Amino acid sequence: MVLLARTTPLEEVKKASEGLSLFFIDFDKNAPGLELKRIKKMGGRAIDANEVFFDGYEVPTDTLIGEEGQGFKIVLHGMNAERCLLAGEALGLGYAALKRASTYARDRIVFGRPIGQNQGIQHPLASAYMHLEAAKLATYHAARLYDASVHDSSITQHAIGVACNSAKYLAAEAAFTACERSVLCMGGMGYAAEYHVERYLRECFVPRIAPVSREMIMNFVGERVLGLPRSY
Amino acid sequence: MVLLARTTPLEEVKKASEGLSLFFIDFDKNAPGLELKRIKKMGGRAIDANEVFFDGYEVPTDTLIGEEGQGFKIVLHGMNAERCLLAGEALGLGYAALKRASTYARDRIVFGRPIGQNQGIQHPLASAYMHLEAAKLATYHAARLYDASVHDSSITQHAIGVACNSAKYLAAEAAFTACERSVLCMGGMGYAAEYHVERYLRECFVPRIAPVSREMIMNFVGERVLGLPRSY
Amino acid sequence: MVLLARTTPLEEVKKASEGLSLFFIDFDKNAPGLELKRIKKMGGRAIDANEVFFDGYEVPTDTLIGEEGQGFKIVLHGMNAERCLLAGEALGLGYAALKRASTYARDRIVFGRPIGQNQGIQHPLASAYMHLEAAKLATYHAARLYDASVHDSSITQHAIGVACNSAKYLAAEAAFTACERSVLCMGGMGYAAEYHVERYLRECFVPRIAPVSREMIMNFVGERVLGLPRSY
Amino acid sequence: MVLLARTTPLEEVKKASEGLSLFFIDFDKNAPGLELKRIKKMGGRAIDANEVFFDGYEVPTDTLIGEEGQGFKIVLHGMNAERCLLAGEALGLGYAALKRASTYARDRIVFGRPIGQNQGIQHPLASAYMHLEAAKLATYHAARLYDASVHDSSITQHAIGVACNSAKYLAAEAAFTACERSVLCMGGMGYAAEYHVERYLRECFVPRIAPVSREMIMNFVGERVLGLPRSY
Repeated sequence: MVLLARTTPLEEVKKASEGLSLFFIDFDKNAPGLELKRIKKMGGRAIDANEVFFDGYEVPTDTLIGEEGQGFKIVLHGMNAERCLLAGEALGLGYAALKRASTYARDRIVFGRPIGQNQGIQHPLASAYMHLEAAKLATYHAARLYDASVHDSSITQHAIGVACNSAKYLAAEAAFTACERSVLCMGGMGYAAEYHVERYLRECFVPRIAPVSREMIMNFVGERVLGLPRSY
Repeated sequence: MVLLARTTPLEEVKKASEGLSLFFIDFDKNAPGLELKRIKKMGGRAIDANEVFFDGYEVPTDTLIGEEGQGFKIVLHGMNAERCLLAGEALGLGYAALKRASTYARDRIVFGRPIGQNQGIQHPLASAYMHLEAAKLATYHAARLYDASVHDSSITQHAIGVACNSAKYLAAEAAFTACERSVLCMGGMGYAAEYHVERYLRECFVPRIAPVSREMIMNFVGERVLGLPRSY
Repeated sequence: MVLLARTTPLEEVKKASEGLSLFFIDFDKNAPGLELKRIKKMGGRAIDANEVFFDGYEVPTDTLIGEEGQGFKIVLHGMNAERCLLAGEALGLGYAALKRASTYARDRIVFGRPIGQNQGIQHPLASAYMHLEAAKLATYHAARLYDASVHDSSITQHAIGVACNSAKYLAAEAAFTACERSVLCMGGMGYAAEYHVERYLRECFVPRIAPVSREMIMNFVGERVLGLPRSY
Repeated sequence: MVLLARTTPLEEVKKASEGLSLFFIDFDKNAPGLELKRIKKMGGRAIDANEVFFDGYEVPTDTLIGEEGQGFKIVLHGMNAERCLLAGEALGLGYAALKRASTYARDRIVFGRPIGQNQGIQHPLASAYMHLEAAKLATYHAARLYDASVHDSSITQHAIGVACNSAKYLAAEAAFTACERSVLCMGGMGYAAEYHVERYLRECFVPRIAPVSREMIMNFVGERVLGLPRSY
């Protein structure tokens, strides 16, 4: 468990984001003072999500990551990298779905010919592919910028933020479109668990929603790039 | 089980759609000559779907619906009504999702105010509502036409077919949009099973895919209404 | 010229919407105290739009519509009817575009067959047709409600407002989609003035923008139907 | 005038694409044997388009580009570069529209605040910006691939074709979306010629339609990338 916990009381810090420390804990479900309630969800089942309740739970000092009180800064530091990570996850789902749908569209014969010969099947998949490719380029661009910034101080945090948030947004949307069209193109087989595309579609909502919503990304770009006033 | 079975061999009929009879069978899973293999699927779990294998299964004569050899005609007769039925199912899912999302958007406070005060949340839901209403009117229109045709011979099968297929198409698409936006508006809560909208979204794929695909409806309208040549 | 003018000074009324009167003036461009500056615009060229400057312009008393000071109320009274009117205008543009595009798609031969035989051409037009039909039903529904309210006091202003605004929104969007797809389906011929669809497309922006924006309609539905807080 | 003309009769060549030569002619409108009929069109007015009729028009030998009979090959050679060019044109239109719309949204005050403070205005512009950026990356990627192929024989014509066609498709669609949203965000001012965005929108249809349609690009990607059968 990576835990962000307040180590200096709120009253003793200037901003709410100060006084937080980050811990990496070798996790024991049944530790005293800890209670977990699993959240049943649409997908993302390889990793469980839980409501976590702490009541007198003891955090060992030697699990501290970085310096005390610097937890929020460390989390922030990882945020842009995380955007790229989630973009990559989304892209993989999208390409996997298109691969399965294309194979199905080549093999499945209706009215004496492969259904993929119908533009009604072929065009939505082709268009989804092009959008995925563009989102992939946006993701590589963001990751490259993030990496290069280590040695190149001319790359601003602003530029990195715009690129990483945009990549996450574009990749998640393009992946979802690819998954949705794959399910629809495969009809009943797309709805059956056996072909996996319905699972890819369910997974795709994670990068659409997390770790930051589409709406917050549009606020960020609206304000920081287009120069529009804060809306909330 | 409603079973459409061939009762006159293919060699003895003029068209493949002839010689089929319809049966309504008081279903026994373990009847000899019958094998069921359940299909795991994305949703629609209130009703199971199965691959069904028949091998020497006996159909009792007294389960025949209508006349022998008229099975396909009877099925056809119900098709337009079924379109309306599925449209109605879709509409219900869409309205239910919008209701939950609106309630959540009113109650959930972020940055000191309900998230529903943000147009980024409010507008997609409002637009989805208007499209649902239009699809509802299209569904009522189709059902009314279908009903009226019993007594009014001026209402053509063509008009009924266009109206019922359009209603199914419009309702399923509008409902899916409403469900998708509801999930996204609720973020992590939309993804959690507890709030039901993720389930509505999964259910929505059934009327999008069945009993006839979106592509076949567009072919139908393209040919019969717009006068374009058959594409497949 | 229909003119809404302040006849009671702002200081003497309680609300800004009071003290306004409506006039119907037999228009003389060169009247003293009046200056017009024509606005060049994308379409809507059958009717010119102008910046109008008044400086000592005299309004004859006998041109007053209704009672003095009731101008704004009278304008409001016509607003819902105007929504239906604009919806109807939009629908006409959409159907006209689809008719031209379908005819072209039937007649135009490429690679040895009519282009309308391609689902890539046929499906977007068919889908646009179904959305136009739904918007037409929404428009008829709104107009019927508005008319019936004269004799049926159980029909609320709220219900009429929702129906008329929704109809305007749906019809303008559906018409635009129909026009855009018609232009694209006709390629270079769609871009040429000779086939008129490019003009229909330009016209379509009027009902999308006026007399009330899409955004204000979504605010209205968001607040009044979904019960969300006012966002602006 | 760049003219592609048949210099070897159809009967004497194996394929229709052979026997064509390319000419670059210092153009005289009134040359004998030449008739031009100007085509009135939606936009693209900086360059006129014409129906051209040849009747005994003489082409001077010294205007030949490349070798006789190689005209079609030379045209093909330029096709991918032309895709990048059109993509660039589209991107410029999209960015110009967003710039004008953002400025307007910052300056225009309604209900006591800039309209750009409304997410209903801000989000569509922000999303359009991200899609434009992705299309720009796709365009740079395609151009880089095309350029590099001169010296790097490992870059296949297939890879270049996919990249250049995708770039043209993505850029034209993203630019149109940016222009459409800019017009809508600016309302009546978007419709007025004075602010130019309505012109950008009209221009955008050129790269959407030409030099190759969206449908042909989707066919290309569907067949060459997704391995689906030819549909036409």
